[in-house]
Amino acid sequence: MYKIAFIGFDTVAKGLAEILIEKKSLLKEIYDFDFKVIAISDPIVGMIYNPLGISLEKALYLCKEGKKLDEELGEPGWDSLKVVKESEADIILEATPTNLETGEPGITHIKEALKAGKHVATTNKGPIALFYKELVDLSKEKGVELRFEGTVLSGTPTLNLALHDLAGIEIVEIRGIVNGTTNFILTEMEKGKTYEEALREAQRLGYAEAKPDADVEGFDALAKIVILSNVLLGGNLSPGDVERRGITELTLDDIERAKGEGKRWKLIAKAKKEGGRVEASVSPEPVSKEDFLYHIMGVINAVQFKTDILREVTIVGPGAGGREAGYALLTDMLDIHRTLKGRN
Amino acid sequence: MYKIAFIGFDTVAKGLAEILIEKKSLLKEIYDFDFKVIAISDPIVGMIYNPLGISLEKALYLCKEGKKLDEELGEPGWDSLKVVKESEADIILEATPTNLETGEPGITHIKEALKAGKHVATTNKGPIALFYKELVDLSKEKGVELRFEGTVLSGTPTLNLALHDLAGIEIVEIRGIVNGTTNFILTEMEKGKTYEEALREAQRLGYAEAKPDADVEGFDALAKIVILSNVLLGGNLSPGDVERRGITELTLDDIERAKGEGKRWKLIAKAKKEGGRVEASVSPEPVSKEDFLYHIMGVINAVQFKTDILREVTIVGPGAGGREAGYALLTDMLDIHRTLKGRN
Repeated sequence: MYKIAFIGFDTVAKGLAEILIEKKSLLKEIYDFDFKVIAISDPIVGMIYNPLGISLEKALYLCKEGKKLDEELGEPGWDSLKVVKESEADIILEATPTNLETGEPGITHIKEALKAGKHVATTNKGPIALFYKELVDLSKEKGVELRFEGTVLSGTPTLNLALHDLAGIEIVEIRGIVNGTTNFILTEMEKGKTYEEALREAQRLGYAEAKPDADVEGFDALAKIVILSNVLLGGNLSPGDVERRGITELTLDDIERAKGEGKRWKLIAKAKKEGGRVEASVSPEPVSKEDFLYHIMGVINAVQFKTDILREVTIVGPGAGGREAGYALLTDMLDIHRTLKGRN
Repeated sequence: MYKIAFIGFDTVAKGLAEILIEKKSLLKEIYDFDFKVIAISDPIVGMIYNPLGISLEKALYLCKEGKKLDEELGEPGWDSLKVVKESEADIILEATPTNLETGEPGITHIKEALKAGKHVATTNKGPIALFYKELVDLSKEKGVELRFEGTVLSGTPTLNLALHDLAGIEIVEIRGIVNGTTNFILTEMEKGKTYEEALREAQRLGYAEAKPDADVEGFDALAKIVILSNVLLGGNLSPGDVERRGITELTLDDIERAKGEGKRWKLIAKAKKEGGRVEASVSPEPVSKEDFLYHIMGVINAVQFKTDILREVTIVGPGAGGREAGYALLTDMLDIHRTLKGRN
């Protein structure tokens, strides 16, 4: 029976909460994975701490009603730092917002959790893009597990695919469409919308935020290619090492010109190992029909691995969404469980 | 240090042998996977048994020179049944040819190996398509591991992806192009070749056998969709339960007519869970541009999983090849290793 704590309880964590409610008995039955939520800590929805167990149904209900979680037990919950340091949680689910400059508040949560001997699963790109090696070293030193499938392509298996299913294979190049918002905007522009119109449509559908820079300027894709480079190609890149261009300068004229040549603009994130060096970039490129990425439309994402044995292997799936990213935390917990206990 | 034995030493096993030679030290260093080959048994290239260890370099060299393996030690090797029953091998690599009617000789090798308490990794579709549940029960009863990633899409992770990376997710439908030979022939016919010309080209390139029925009549795809259905959808299908049509009746006219409608013929293998029932079929279908499988050309394979949480996840990669299928046996061994020891 794992004791788990949610640090951050926004869309992704709520997506996971829904899945955990639906699948609780299945997870116990098939994977022998049993759990109890003992803390939720979020600056907006509030804090609740109860070592006897918290009802996720109740927590989601309170959020929906716009009520603070604190009120539930009639006593204040623990703040996130107290939870990661002092609670008896076995697994910390870190799902606070990404900050690509400092990695905060995620990096502090993760470090303190690992130091306190707790396993961590996170969807937060900041800490992994900025401090991957440091965090892995710390987790090894402390003998605990760190997982972060959801930092790339939400719950679509990408890191697990490469690390587990492609074990023993050398990945020499990675190339993909790793941001759904920009791919949606480019897809809409192909239909004749201007950049501004397409962006507004993306915002209306909830794919883009009111302040869309993280997506349209390529920062989100940048974080992901840094993570893929460092985790899978053995790179040691910082976000500042990666050439980055977003899609804001693309005009309908550019789109039309590419179309005339049988091509399509895509925001391509790529990384390559050459000699001992890893180089990565994020940039819009006109890609041709023969290129598999040409056919990836809308909010779908895709990552291609060029390998030494299997030539090219491509994974295609959703790159965002509350339940989709929430699932990544579940797959991470199941992987931690399998690592700790052996399967069956 | 695992003691491993090759049962069957044709293209796939030789592909694995090459990989094991190249990666031996890496496998030890990164995955703590160390091995010694103690037996090779094949009706054509011969038999060699040596508990002190067999040089794979030497074995490949003898094969290349057209020499029997038996000659190497100056004494006869053990036959396959003796190896699986009496040798001290920990892992049996079963890579004999597929027989979809009886499952032999693979089924006997696998059963006897499991009964003797040995782990098994196989690329042989026959035993898994015909006797999956029985073999899984036997492996559980004996407390040993059975893996067969290479029975579908060669080394491209498909079963592992679904079982491991998509753990906790419900797969409700599977659809794919799972036979490279027929997809190559259809791709060539799109370029204007007749069926016969395209088949000859496939034979010239080694994609199709002299007697191509297993591929072109859809038997290979049938075996794969039965395996996917039974392993991932909880089905209990026999090959005879599945509607099967091959591509031999497709004419250039059919191809052209589809082209006129913006479509392409593909040999589609699919399976669906509805209520408690699983239904599967293999049949050529005209698919449209919006369908991802439209864009899978040549010998490449693809499988789409429709799921309850991640909508559609698609894996694309090579579906055949000696090294590619040989790798499947390596990924299986590493998975067995991980299951036995827990990851680091």
